[in-house]
Amino acid sequence: MPRLPEPDHLPEQAAGPAPAAAPVATALRAEAAAFLRALRHHTEAAQDPQEAREAARSLGRSARRLGATLHTFRPLLDREWADRLRPELTWLSGVLADEHLVAARLTRLLASLHRLSGPAAPRRGGPGIGAAKAGALLERRLTLARTRAHSACLTAFASARLHALVDEVALLGGDVPLAEDAHLRPAGRADTLAEAAARRLSDAVTALPLHRAGHPYNADALALAVPAPDGQDTPWHQVRLLLRLHRYAQEVVAPDAAPDPHVTAARHALDHHRDASEAAHEAASAAATPRIAPTTAYALGVLHADQRHEVEAARYAFQRAWAGEAVGVGGE
Amino acid sequence: MPRLPEPDHLPEQAAGPAPAAAPVATALRAEAAAFLRALRHHTEAAQDPQEAREAARSLGRSARRLGATLHTFRPLLDREWADRLRPELTWLSGVLADEHLVAARLTRLLASLHRLSGPAAPRRGGPGIGAAKAGALLERRLTLARTRAHSACLTAFASARLHALVDEVALLGGDVPLAEDAHLRPAGRADTLAEAAARRLSDAVTALPLHRAGHPYNADALALAVPAPDGQDTPWHQVRLLLRLHRYAQEVVAPDAAPDPHVTAARHALDHHRDASEAAHEAASAAATPRIAPTTAYALGVLHADQRHEVEAARYAFQRAWAGEAVGVGGE
Repeated sequence: MPRLPEPDHLPEQAAGPAPAAAPVATALRAEAAAFLRALRHHTEAAQDPQEAREAARSLGRSARRLGATLHTFRPLLDREWADRLRPELTWLSGVLADEHLVAARLTRLLASLHRLSGPAAPRRGGPGIGAAKAGALLERRLTLARTRAHSACLTAFASARLHALVDEVALLGGDVPLAEDAHLRPAGRADTLAEAAARRLSDAVTALPLHRAGHPYNADALALAVPAPDGQDTPWHQVRLLLRLHRYAQEVVAPDAAPDPHVTAARHALDHHRDASEAAHEAASAAATPRIAPTTAYALGVLHADQRHEVEAARYAFQRAWAGEAVGVGGE
Repeated sequence: MPRLPEPDHLPEQAAGPAPAAAPVATALRAEAAAFLRALRHHTEAAQDPQEAREAARSLGRSARRLGATLHTFRPLLDREWADRLRPELTWLSGVLADEHLVAARLTRLLASLHRLSGPAAPRRGGPGIGAAKAGALLERRLTLARTRAHSACLTAFASARLHALVDEVALLGGDVPLAEDAHLRPAGRADTLAEAAARRLSDAVTALPLHRAGHPYNADALALAVPAPDGQDTPWHQVRLLLRLHRYAQEVVAPDAAPDPHVTAARHALDHHRDASEAAHEAASAAATPRIAPTTAYALGVLHADQRHEVEAARYAFQRAWAGEAVGVGGE
């Protein structure tokens, strides 16, 4: 394990940062402390898999927040440092998120199969049998994927790469590396950068085909051809990332503001969108398994369509949430 | 072929019917004339399959209208006669509708497969291949069903059963057999019976689970278990029949009124519902074909879910149309 400074005894900042960068430095220091707390928690919870998983998720969340802050407020920070640290934070949050995502995907797919099979008793060769076999196939595939994700996590925790990253994050307890000209920037500079993040989000939303998502039961999204995760869903995934950057930027410049319920609803819709999109992809990929029974393939086809249906439902929910939100973001 | 009286030389009614039954008698006489015209048209079009099909559909429509009028206004008619004639009209309209319905079902399923396959070039073993094979399987099944329906039509046209029915309908050109007490009924009696038909419709709509249909993306309807045509869709099919009875009753008591656009929209939604429900059932039944390839079964699963999705979309459309209509039907 990397050496950990005591989070509660991080050195106080020596000299105050330039006023323009002050909220950013404060946020980075607080998040660095949360990062180190989560890491300590993970070490201490080694005997309790459930608690270790929760600590790993907290650590991933902190890594994501730190990376987002480095991204949005880059002009106020030491760029060479920010550009070196950010990919490391992305790597860590990705590795830590995988196991949970894979487990949640299996739960989602099995719940969908259960719901779709309905209360009817499975008949010999009937849809119940196909659903049961499809469930078993998905369970085999995703349990394997989960085991792999778990191993990748363990490898990451023991890696020199994580040690180096922790050392960098620990340094944030002291001086935050600012841009040389940060002290020359006007005091409202952080707000301007947060506004730019909001604008990037609202531009990306404007470019979405909302006229179709806003139409209930748009069956176009129910494509039979396996939509690659990088296919038609990409603009929505992109908006999800931009919404996250916007949200984290708001937390930096207005840490005491209550979260906008419309933004929260939009975020949940986009999370739902991502989950359903990836579950649909998994169902379609599982159907390509050689030598499966036709009833299994049929159930996977229905399951795929069901999840694409949820993708559309999530777009529709996003559009409704956003229509409420847009009033707050300059009436666009 | 049955002997046909010249529709343009039907004997004038001897004595006017009782005022209560007058609009019903007028409507029955007019529809009987249309029935006989369509039958004549069908005989004359023997060499032109397209025209013969259209004549058969007109004949079926007239049979449906006559049967509906006998049903709704039965208390004003000779019951023994009405009860004998109505099942014969139902039989004829059913036989005549089948061929068209089967052909339309194939068109709908192939269009859906085409849309779901998307623009992607079919890859070896990819979803394009499954869609092509599923299309070929559906084409075989439904072409066979269509041939059978066509034979049933030809048999019906040559049958003694049709001859007897035509003789009965031709008699409507003279005296419409009224109930013995029809002349004792008040003049507004036909209106009251039409209102009862409207009430039966609106009661059936009230009993529909509209709170779910009104919710976009209700995935409950996407059941994996083959929903039998007499399953969860039954109340909607029932409303479709009651809406038809209501519409025909309105044509009898207010023949000059323009059709309510909300009723027209609701009717189209319920037709769409019926078509999608039966197409979904066909996709699921085709998937039970022994020894089909898994890719074919997968495509049929997606197709099934797509059509169930359209069933839900149709319910949603009906609910919206009905919300407009309900204002006109007593503010319910």
